[in-house]
Amino acid sequence: MLLEQIKEPTLLLDKAKVLRNIERMAKKAEESNVVLRPHFKTHQSHEIGRWFRDYGVKSITVSSLRMAEYFAEDGWDDILVAFPVNVLEIDRLNALAARVKLTILVESREVMEKLDAELTTAVDFYINIDIGYGRTGIMVTDLDAIDSILDVSDVSKTLNFIGFYTHAGNTYKCKKKKPVTDIFKLYEHGMVRLKEQYTMDYPEIKLSYGDTPSCSILKDFSNFDEIHPGNFVFYDMQQKHISACSIDSIAVAMACPIVAKHERRSEVVIYGGGVHFSTERARRPENVDYFGLIVAFKKEKWHVNEMGSFIRAVSQEHGVIKASEELMKKASVGDILVILPIHACMTADAMPHYLTTEGEIIEKWDGK
Amino acid sequence: MLLEQIKEPTLLLDKAKVLRNIERMAKKAEESNVVLRPHFKTHQSHEIGRWFRDYGVKSITVSSLRMAEYFAEDGWDDILVAFPVNVLEIDRLNALAARVKLTILVESREVMEKLDAELTTAVDFYINIDIGYGRTGIMVTDLDAIDSILDVSDVSKTLNFIGFYTHAGNTYKCKKKKPVTDIFKLYEHGMVRLKEQYTMDYPEIKLSYGDTPSCSILKDFSNFDEIHPGNFVFYDMQQKHISACSIDSIAVAMACPIVAKHERRSEVVIYGGGVHFSTERARRPENVDYFGLIVAFKKEKWHVNEMGSFIRAVSQEHGVIKASEELMKKASVGDILVILPIHACMTADAMPHYLTTEGEIIEKWDGK
Repeated sequence: MLLEQIKEPTLLLDKAKVLRNIERMAKKAEESNVVLRPHFKTHQSHEIGRWFRDYGVKSITVSSLRMAEYFAEDGWDDILVAFPVNVLEIDRLNALAARVKLTILVESREVMEKLDAELTTAVDFYINIDIGYGRTGIMVTDLDAIDSILDVSDVSKTLNFIGFYTHAGNTYKCKKKKPVTDIFKLYEHGMVRLKEQYTMDYPEIKLSYGDTPSCSILKDFSNFDEIHPGNFVFYDMQQKHISACSIDSIAVAMACPIVAKHERRSEVVIYGGGVHFSTERARRPENVDYFGLIVAFKKEKWHVNEMGSFIRAVSQEHGVIKASEELMKKASVGDILVILPIHACMTADAMPHYLTTEGEIIEKWDGK
Repeated sequence: MLLEQIKEPTLLLDKAKVLRNIERMAKKAEESNVVLRPHFKTHQSHEIGRWFRDYGVKSITVSSLRMAEYFAEDGWDDILVAFPVNVLEIDRLNALAARVKLTILVESREVMEKLDAELTTAVDFYINIDIGYGRTGIMVTDLDAIDSILDVSDVSKTLNFIGFYTHAGNTYKCKKKKPVTDIFKLYEHGMVRLKEQYTMDYPEIKLSYGDTPSCSILKDFSNFDEIHPGNFVFYDMQQKHISACSIDSIAVAMACPIVAKHERRSEVVIYGGGVHFSTERARRPENVDYFGLIVAFKKEKWHVNEMGSFIRAVSQEHGVIKASEELMKKASVGDILVILPIHACMTADAMPHYLTTEGEIIEKWDGK
């Protein structure tokens, strides 16, 4: 019995759900005739990475050079580092570019000049485009900034312009499919327009588009060349609230021991807090923040018949659960509760490995 | 030059400040004639633990059995695991209790009975008391629950009752010294009353009191026997907002490379996000959330003349900084920004080691 081996906070993984999530996205990409270049920062695992290969995935996205090195070790040789180049890591970048086909993200002439001076191997680069998310990237309308980057690459021996990259991170604030669709349409319009403007001079350029919500909700990506969602491999409660997945698609769950029970206030306390789940939160229908949703566990699988119980507070190692009447009746100290995370990327990042519902440990990157 | 060695998000540590923070708390404890049993979950480091020994600290607090094992390896032999006992870890508990003087936290008869049946070595235990924080522990007024625990230990060969433990976690919601003082007085009253009620039958019992805000703000702890604050070793912006420390006492800071600069919106983007800082937030005077405060760095030290710049958003690896005019003027891609964290415990937990302002790497527990 799976839960009987668990003695501490443990990140469970339902492999069948992961495979279904990968298959669905791979099929979608295929139907749109775009490359699926999944973001591997979500799972950070060699083994899970290998599962993607069975669905034809050959190119990947990561968020740091160290993470790129980790996946290069396992044979991935077409890696996009989807983070504005950190010029301080030029040695690491040069070393890696000598081993694999590396694509980087650039968004200023200043960085281009530094790279042009210091790169020892040729790399492909995307220009990072912002279409309203406001995190980073060049505003889609700022053609001067784009041109000033291309002025450098046009004469560079090492910097090869391959197109435009964007991350529609503002879909994470949506609560319905419609606004996600609207954001997608805006990004699509902006990116396509950009391609049109530069295609004469750069006929080979590509458009790379990402974010799990829109890649999950939309169907036709044929105006792009590549999609790079990441979270879809696991999904989580945040994606459920966005309407990007069904709760049944969530492929990871925390398993945590109950360490205290408070009858009078209908709460139980688990060994499992901010250092395990992260402190990412979402909003309950009754307008309170929560940090994870309790699900039933039967026949070695979790089931989504929500018990109405949720983590209402986390401190470093404690989680305090607002428990339904049903949960209060059956919960005892020493039982294991299974809990869907709010943000699977952050929870997976915090945990040292996965335990599949078949009882197998799956190792992951130690992040160092 | 310190910042010149930094190429990735790095947790800086000002050893002089750490030592001053330890000294101040040790002196306070001495003046009140109470034992300082510092909570080591904040720093999680053998080396930093050793610094406490110079101030007479012999007993420590940790938040998990694994963390207790880590410190036992470095010679600590009087360890309180200040987390409700997880009965599933009985083997680990027995193994550790055979090596060191272990004190545990109990809050139900049910757990007492399990422990009594399965402990192979005698351990001391505190009863965990709640005086309004509402996380976990027995309500201070619930003498029946306390008595039902003592019924078990009175006839147990392994469970040795040593007193009452409480954590005044509700001081973390305070914004001034006065409400912290009020909370302290309430806890003091409740705990002293409890001791009076049980001292006839248990003349040796002790009171253990904690939380950094009140241990920092109050001076007289003589009604307790032991204090167990943790965060004070580093302090952070959260403690500053509570008025528990001056900003000058904050002894850790993140150093992060600038990877992008957005002139029009006066923002810079750093390599440094939720996986480095954690996603803990606090509120700015202008009523927006923030995730870290930028400080000046000169002559190998950070300085608290706030530049009016702060992290306004974090995603997994990105931090977006709302930059003052001054910062916008001088900041360039490739520069390192130094940033005081909101919650040092969570930031330290997320980072793999410390770099002192003298350039020395300090290793810490890997948490596994």
